[in-house]
Amino acid sequence: MITLSRRLDDVRGSAIRDLLTLTARPDVLSLAGGLPAADLLPRERIAEAAAAALTDPASVQYGETAGLGRLRDVVAAHETGRCGRTIGPAGVVVTTGSQQALDLLARVLLDQGDVVVVEDPVYVGALQVFQAAGAALLTVPLDDHGMRVDVLAERLAAGLRPRLVHTVSSFHNPRGVTMADGRRRRLAGLADRYGFLVVEDDPYGLLAFDGPPPVPVAAHGERVVRLGSASKILAPALRVGWLTGPAQVCAAVERLKQCTDLCTSALTQAIAADLLADTTWLDAHLSHVRAVTAGRARAFTTAVAELLPQVMCTVPTGGMFCWLEFPGGTDTTELLPRALAGGVGFVPGSAFAVDARLPDAARCCFASLPSEDLREAVRRLGAAVSRRAPRPFHAGT
Amino acid sequence: MITLSRRLDDVRGSAIRDLLTLTARPDVLSLAGGLPAADLLPRERIAEAAAAALTDPASVQYGETAGLGRLRDVVAAHETGRCGRTIGPAGVVVTTGSQQALDLLARVLLDQGDVVVVEDPVYVGALQVFQAAGAALLTVPLDDHGMRVDVLAERLAAGLRPRLVHTVSSFHNPRGVTMADGRRRRLAGLADRYGFLVVEDDPYGLLAFDGPPPVPVAAHGERVVRLGSASKILAPALRVGWLTGPAQVCAAVERLKQCTDLCTSALTQAIAADLLADTTWLDAHLSHVRAVTAGRARAFTTAVAELLPQVMCTVPTGGMFCWLEFPGGTDTTELLPRALAGGVGFVPGSAFAVDARLPDAARCCFASLPSEDLREAVRRLGAAVSRRAPRPFHAGT
Repeated sequence: MITLSRRLDDVRGSAIRDLLTLTARPDVLSLAGGLPAADLLPRERIAEAAAAALTDPASVQYGETAGLGRLRDVVAAHETGRCGRTIGPAGVVVTTGSQQALDLLARVLLDQGDVVVVEDPVYVGALQVFQAAGAALLTVPLDDHGMRVDVLAERLAAGLRPRLVHTVSSFHNPRGVTMADGRRRRLAGLADRYGFLVVEDDPYGLLAFDGPPPVPVAAHGERVVRLGSASKILAPALRVGWLTGPAQVCAAVERLKQCTDLCTSALTQAIAADLLADTTWLDAHLSHVRAVTAGRARAFTTAVAELLPQVMCTVPTGGMFCWLEFPGGTDTTELLPRALAGGVGFVPGSAFAVDARLPDAARCCFASLPSEDLREAVRRLGAAVSRRAPRPFHAGT
Repeated sequence: MITLSRRLDDVRGSAIRDLLTLTARPDVLSLAGGLPAADLLPRERIAEAAAAALTDPASVQYGETAGLGRLRDVVAAHETGRCGRTIGPAGVVVTTGSQQALDLLARVLLDQGDVVVVEDPVYVGALQVFQAAGAALLTVPLDDHGMRVDVLAERLAAGLRPRLVHTVSSFHNPRGVTMADGRRRRLAGLADRYGFLVVEDDPYGLLAFDGPPPVPVAAHGERVVRLGSASKILAPALRVGWLTGPAQVCAAVERLKQCTDLCTSALTQAIAADLLADTTWLDAHLSHVRAVTAGRARAFTTAVAELLPQVMCTVPTGGMFCWLEFPGGTDTTELLPRALAGGVGFVPGSAFAVDARLPDAARCCFASLPSEDLREAVRRLGAAVSRRAPRPFHAGT
């Protein structure tokens, strides 16, 4: 017998992860995953960049903990443009995916019992990180315009004093919504007034279907730590993410990263730096990804409107996810086995629920399947809904 | 003002890291680093493997948290051979370097105040991880045959009940020594008797200069978690390490890794799997690395014997490090600035000391410099020793 840390008791297992095993069956059209579309990952351009990087001896050696200089430069320039104020390379720490940035942030900022505000429904990876850090979690609901910052403001006025407020500000996972500009400005102001930090988790911001990416919360104040990632715009296997924020936070994150994994791969950082700095290629690549993904989003929502007219569906303006709300009485957790039997997978809303229960909701990823498969997936979902649940078998009595 | 977690207060800053900045000056021959020799990293073979890996769409996507199947297979086969009992792929978790394995292990196994035994002098990366996890640290000294397991046994008999005992069993960093076989057997037996886990941190085991690598502690018992790494045998930039151990520990580590960085790079794992499975190439590569490194070790120790006859020096039988003990009265922390001024860097023993003070010791890495530079480095070290320390300036009185 080996005794494990009590820390782990507080971390919710990922229902999504168990589910992904089921939806990996070849006969299942999966809307459950959160993976970028395989056909949109620029594998050949990455191979070119890898070959170029590997002419440099530094590409196979240990690197600086804070990250490769030229990657920090290109991220700093990008964030300066996004936020409308100068962010220098010293304000950037490269992490092993932005999930590591979340984990390091939680560990450097939180002591046992510190209050963290999360959105409900929540990005499960953030929930787990804050649970592992021993945080006391409070939730704020979302509506079609993102986090209900007015609800947060009321709670702050009533005495709530969080250390962190976490938000997936743009093209929310799982809810599909984007925080309105006015709310962003107000959230940054509340952070200044009440002394908390906003963690603006933004892996999807560059996947806006129309027009420029949303102006970050970090454009409106300095008590914001922004997390970015190459996973959804270049490729997940680079495991390259980054964090920008106050110098004191960057220094602490860098110090903890040193004993957490020493540094992120110099090779995959060099590949990411090459692709992000090649703006002609990057613009064309992102335009293509956005156009294809927008087409898939349209195909999915059109199919839902036609084939599941009773279901409410967010209208995605970017990102990868759509949130469905079934009419009262449908329990999506009960629906799921019938859906899988009928060849379609999704994630029940309850997997993302913290205080809310969300029994009638589902997260669907429209990014990974071609349009014709999305339509067929919706058709199968409709069939599962209309099929009657099997009557429970009562032995004897 | 941003308040940071109290966790960080317990983590020792790495003096080595600050030092590496100084020793990076082009006029300094550095014995301070712990980097594998750049000229021995198989960059061209890695480029071949990268090109091959990138023909597979899976190489750019997210992967399973526990690691790439074929990498776990090859590690399991290797560990089965090393340990003399069957270790299946399910008993392997791939990590982002073995430093991440240490961090995850500490977090899944330790609660605040749990007792951890470390060697003194210690691998600083392990010390930091256990400090970050809030462990109560106790030390056991080392001698020329590795950890003084007899001292540990006495303390256990007297009531000590650690959760973990950490050891760099082979070619110790920083001490250069290897734990004797009898001690390994005894340590595994103590783990069974007293119910603790041994963390056998073994990045250097395959770098044995003569004969086969040492038989692992894990060959003698099942309460051992073994950590391995591609960093010292292939390349650090792959950021590929692994952990083998009891199923319960592997499952917990995998679960925490999920919310720590989701997965290690599928691309660098594919490269590592390719190189480790190519046994003809690997054997030739490791033979070459061992032969060159053994030659450097000989050049270094020969130069020390000739040019610093008053200094005691471990005779390295593998790995990368040599431990020097200067005659009484020499303080290596005071010696360092004079050495740097004279163009040679090393790490003072005090950087690795926990309870011991070790003022007269120094860690020297012989692996990274060609033999002629090593001789020159020792000559400069000798000059720094014989140069008189500048007399302190006393103003007025």
